[in-house]
Amino acid sequence: MSYCSNIQQAAKSKGSRIVLALDLPFEAPADRSKILAKAQSILKAVHPCICAVKINHHLVLPLGTFDGVQQLVEKIRGQGLIAIMDAKVNDIGSTNQVIAQYYFAAGFDALIANPFIGWEEGLKPLFEVSRRLNRGIILLCYMSHRGAQEGYGQTIIDLETGKQKLQYLSFAEKAVKYRADGIVVGATFPQKITEVKHVVGEKVAIYSPGVGAQGGSAETALKAGANYLIIGREITLAVDPAKAAGEILDSIKGV
Amino acid sequence: MSYCSNIQQAAKSKGSRIVLALDLPFEAPADRSKILAKAQSILKAVHPCICAVKINHHLVLPLGTFDGVQQLVEKIRGQGLIAIMDAKVNDIGSTNQVIAQYYFAAGFDALIANPFIGWEEGLKPLFEVSRRLNRGIILLCYMSHRGAQEGYGQTIIDLETGKQKLQYLSFAEKAVKYRADGIVVGATFPQKITEVKHVVGEKVAIYSPGVGAQGGSAETALKAGANYLIIGREITLAVDPAKAAGEILDSIKGV
Repeated sequence: MSYCSNIQQAAKSKGSRIVLALDLPFEAPADRSKILAKAQSILKAVHPCICAVKINHHLVLPLGTFDGVQQLVEKIRGQGLIAIMDAKVNDIGSTNQVIAQYYFAAGFDALIANPFIGWEEGLKPLFEVSRRLNRGIILLCYMSHRGAQEGYGQTIIDLETGKQKLQYLSFAEKAVKYRADGIVVGATFPQKITEVKHVVGEKVAIYSPGVGAQGGSAETALKAGANYLIIGREITLAVDPAKAAGEILDSIKGV
Repeated sequence: MSYCSNIQQAAKSKGSRIVLALDLPFEAPADRSKILAKAQSILKAVHPCICAVKINHHLVLPLGTFDGVQQLVEKIRGQGLIAIMDAKVNDIGSTNQVIAQYYFAAGFDALIANPFIGWEEGLKPLFEVSRRLNRGIILLCYMSHRGAQEGYGQTIIDLETGKQKLQYLSFAEKAVKYRADGIVVGATFPQKITEVKHVVGEKVAIYSPGVGAQGGSAETALKAGANYLIIGREITLAVDPAKAAGEILDSIKGV
């Protein structure tokens, strides 16, 4: 089965389109064992309310890819959840391939990458590795922070037509062309989710971060066209993560 | 002393403007102890010919930030060399800060970041951490691979003037404005090094990767305006890395 089928099935069986961003604050390196324990405890509490877990450098740097992170990925997958590595890959192709090989060897189902690097000797070798290993590639389209306006929101001259185009709509077109397994559009900009949805239709699933701590609304993002919601601090920093995740899930049950 | 003074002094005392990109090919996770041994052996052989070492995910993912990589960084700094982490940071600000805190805790002198993320809630929090800890931030400007044309080489509409501008020249202007500690321009595009040099002058040092395996010439890059050369596979994959590094150093002694 493909990555897209796997996450669809996980969402269906869990009754949730929430991707948990398992991001924990910086801890002094000597205290990093605390991070693994905390991550495991959140996962244990929250797994019935989510379909996937997204890991970022918050865990990879202190825990190590083949130490704590691989253990976590095994637990994630053991609970019928999908494991996504938010590496925001943006290097030259030969490096992107090495990055992908390591993360896929650690058990991740998909990687997030930045299409700004371009296709030749950039994304192409990354897609090749991911296709060969039957894993997914999700591309950034419009991030959830204010500064996204500067790059993702800029106007560019389209190389093929010579006409002006918004950068993020160009990324959305490329995601369709490359048959990416997903695209990231911030929940903080619901109007942009709708614009991107018009470009990608049902061909590329929209993953939407920025719900909660960053100010985005889960319901609004879904109504705008998001397929999956990426939620981090609203759950991970809650006094009761299971309750927080359950409340978000309840709030979008009817959407 | 600032990061910039430190690398200038290392370059002077070593008589070299070569930054070794200590990138090694993928190894099956079970064999990753080989990577640390290989990296240490290259460093031992090559250290008299270089002023700094740049580490990328080739080492961080298999070795771990606070295991093998921290050991390597200690050896690098113990030999009077500068340690640069090529993380190509491109996340939201709160994540960028966590990434920076971990890498700086592991001993790195500087981090490479992608200015495409924008300033507000992107680069700004990253610069704040780096200034507080007295470390450096080097920004990507034009990468060394063919696909760089698509993003770094695109034409954008400048938000302030409403006029057309090349993306990489906009990044060069931002590097000056933010007082970045360096800027990366591929040796594979020497004409672009010269264009960027006209923008940044002596205010921001140019680091140039892509010499050797990717086809760039060390001499041409320096003549075009590069301050430092980033060289990886030409040295790391050579049968005799010390000889390879020595030959490159000899070839640019007079430039």
